Amino acid sequence: MKLASRMREIAPFHVMELMARAAAMEAAGRSVIHLEVGEPDFATADPILRAGQEFLRGGHVHYTPALGLPQLREAISGFYRQRYGIDVPPARIVVTAGASGALMLALGVLVDPGDEWLLPDPGYPCNRHFVRLLEGRPVSLPVGATSNYQPTAEAVSASWGMKTRGLLIASPANPTGTVIDPRTLAELAGIVANRQGSLVVDEIYHGLTYGTTATSALSLGEDVFVINSFSKYFGMTGWRLGWLVAPQRHVREIEKLAQNLYIAPSTLAQQAALAAFSPETIAVLEERRREFEARRDLLLPGLEQLGFRIAAKPQGAFYVYADSSELGADSQVLAERLLDEAGVAATPGLDFGDNAPRHHMRFAYTVERGRLAEGLERMRKLFA
Amino acid sequence: MKLASRMREIAPFHVMELMARAAAMEAAGRSVIHLEVGEPDFATADPILRAGQEFLRGGHVHYTPALGLPQLREAISGFYRQRYGIDVPPARIVVTAGASGALMLALGVLVDPGDEWLLPDPGYPCNRHFVRLLEGRPVSLPVGATSNYQPTAEAVSASWGMKTRGLLIASPANPTGTVIDPRTLAELAGIVANRQGSLVVDEIYHGLTYGTTATSALSLGEDVFVINSFSKYFGMTGWRLGWLVAPQRHVREIEKLAQNLYIAPSTLAQQAALAAFSPETIAVLEERRREFEARRDLLLPGLEQLGFRIAAKPQGAFYVYADSSELGADSQVLAERLLDEAGVAATPGLDFGDNAPRHHMRFAYTVERGRLAEGLERMRKLFA
Repeated sequence: MKLASRMREIAPFHVMELMARAAAMEAAGRSVIHLEVGEPDFATADPILRAGQEFLRGGHVHYTPALGLPQLREAISGFYRQRYGIDVPPARIVVTAGASGALMLALGVLVDPGDEWLLPDPGYPCNRHFVRLLEGRPVSLPVGATSNYQPTAEAVSASWGMKTRGLLIASPANPTGTVIDPRTLAELAGIVANRQGSLVVDEIYHGLTYGTTATSALSLGEDVFVINSFSKYFGMTGWRLGWLVAPQRHVREIEKLAQNLYIAPSTLAQQAALAAFSPETIAVLEERRREFEARRDLLLPGLEQLGFRIAAKPQGAFYVYADSSELGADSQVLAERLLDEAGVAATPGLDFGDNAPRHHMRFAYTVERGRLAEGLERMRKLFA
Repeated sequence: MKLASRMREIAPFHVMELMARAAAMEAAGRSVIHLEVGEPDFATADPILRAGQEFLRGGHVHYTPALGLPQLREAISGFYRQRYGIDVPPARIVVTAGASGALMLALGVLVDPGDEWLLPDPGYPCNRHFVRLLEGRPVSLPVGATSNYQPTAEAVSASWGMKTRGLLIASPANPTGTVIDPRTLAELAGIVANRQGSLVVDEIYHGLTYGTTATSALSLGEDVFVINSFSKYFGMTGWRLGWLVAPQRHVREIEKLAQNLYIAPSTLAQQAALAAFSPETIAVLEERRREFEARRDLLLPGLEQLGFRIAAKPQGAFYVYADSSELGADSQVLAERLLDEAGVAATPGLDFGDNAPRHHMRFAYTVERGRLAEGLERMRKLFA
């Protein structure tokens, strides 16, 4: 029995080993401040929980259509109208098993073997593995602080080769928290369209922006695939629910793939998510957004005072991507030292690509401010 | 923007069109007996619902480990010990987003581009599409009533070619409901092992057998991938939860893929499923199993009296696969006629492969006996 070749190129999350180590330390009675986890500490918002409980009382947890509950697709469409002022018909909206499911469906209908896809580096590691799973070739597009860690029109034009078929970007981005400016976004869409390529935009951190708003690529017209999630702004991580917006003419193909790969997304998660757009829920989520902003405003200067360099201020998501080279030559070694000696867990750059990963770390502000302050204090003592 | 070539070979569920037509008829006030749906009519068993509600009260619906909740993996291991008397360590058990997730992970780590996989025909249509998604080549292995619609050792040996890398079988099977005999199962495992191939066994209908029991391929040793589900025997369709049992040495690779493709299965579904193995739940499920058996024993002779021919008696699942050629030259046309003229929906053979699909239909006994009897009566009048 031999394994598929792709598995040699699909990497584990390196942070998992660190997390296992942290868990072992905690089991042995040591305290660990968790700044490595890309999952907020909040419980699911009450109105969403109540909707889930209400639905469970009936007990009829049967399959929904593969594209999702019609009323949820309507609700998402309404959210685009209300929040963005854009018209996204429900027929273009596909409810999915997390943003992961949305990514699989978009790339499943787009990526042919040997196709090259441009992916900003640093970036979310799963993206390149989805491309690889489908026998495409992920191509790293290095991005730096001078362009706010977002691809430029020039870089995409220059990197677009004979076999390039697509560009996958994220805004706000993981691990950098940066937001692409609307002009650049429009330029990128134009470049991709001119080359008959496909543009996939990961908007899963939309809603979590601080002092700015993120433009949806859906405002640029129909020829774009947009991925979104109920996990981040809506705080529904463990429910595993997201959505994909696709060009209308490709929805039938996406439906075929969704039927075959998933049957349908979780019924219970969909029923609960119907409450995600109510004014009551949005009020809770907006309060949490302000809390995230306060956390960022505590963590970012604190890290800078320790000697980390944050070259582009994060405007969204819940991450700070910091240059750690003043504090250690290798961020992997530094991360281990921070954990072992200070009881602070953070993610080394290795998980985010090949672009100077040994010089960077990602800190997540997914824990309350008291814990952030305690983590900063522990590091201060270590570096003193 | 061009779509991936694979999409030309990934077929929709043909029955969906029929279901849309049935829904339109019902919206117009006509009554339809649904014998096309592979989903039982039962609500989720009470103890499982209660466990879900209890968990929701806490509200902490966060991610679980990618391989699933440790206590659920333990519980599944306990189920194998108790029900089958076999030792399957929790470390070999991977909790997944439905059996669909299990199939993706198993084939994701096994299928290389160009690899050929043998799949019994008729069979569950998604299987070949998963192989195709991963750029493998699904090869139809025709099976007939003389071998109980299961592959024989001779047929697998004869069909195994230079590029064949695996065999994927199901017992009880969909659409035929037949169970493979233990001797044949062991022979098939031997043939696959001798050829350094991989054996994947779909056991999602285990537990739903009538007057017989199904042997788990896990009793044959560690070198097999077994797929199972909480959707069928455990009646948790819309929760989207299943599991994969893999050889221990491959679990690390499967974990990598699971992290990247799914992050984790639904937390809520996993918490609820912890109640799936309790004596109280099993008592409910066994009562439902007896009800399925009674439904089969009503539907099967009823169909035979109408002129359908059932060449191999279904021993499990909730389907009757019937030769319809006495009643119509083309089962697709017949299915449309049954729906339009008698208000009875059933699935034409086209959804299950290339092996005489126009001569067969699948009837699901997923509705109560009164509805089954009414469906039979409507067909009797139509054919009278």
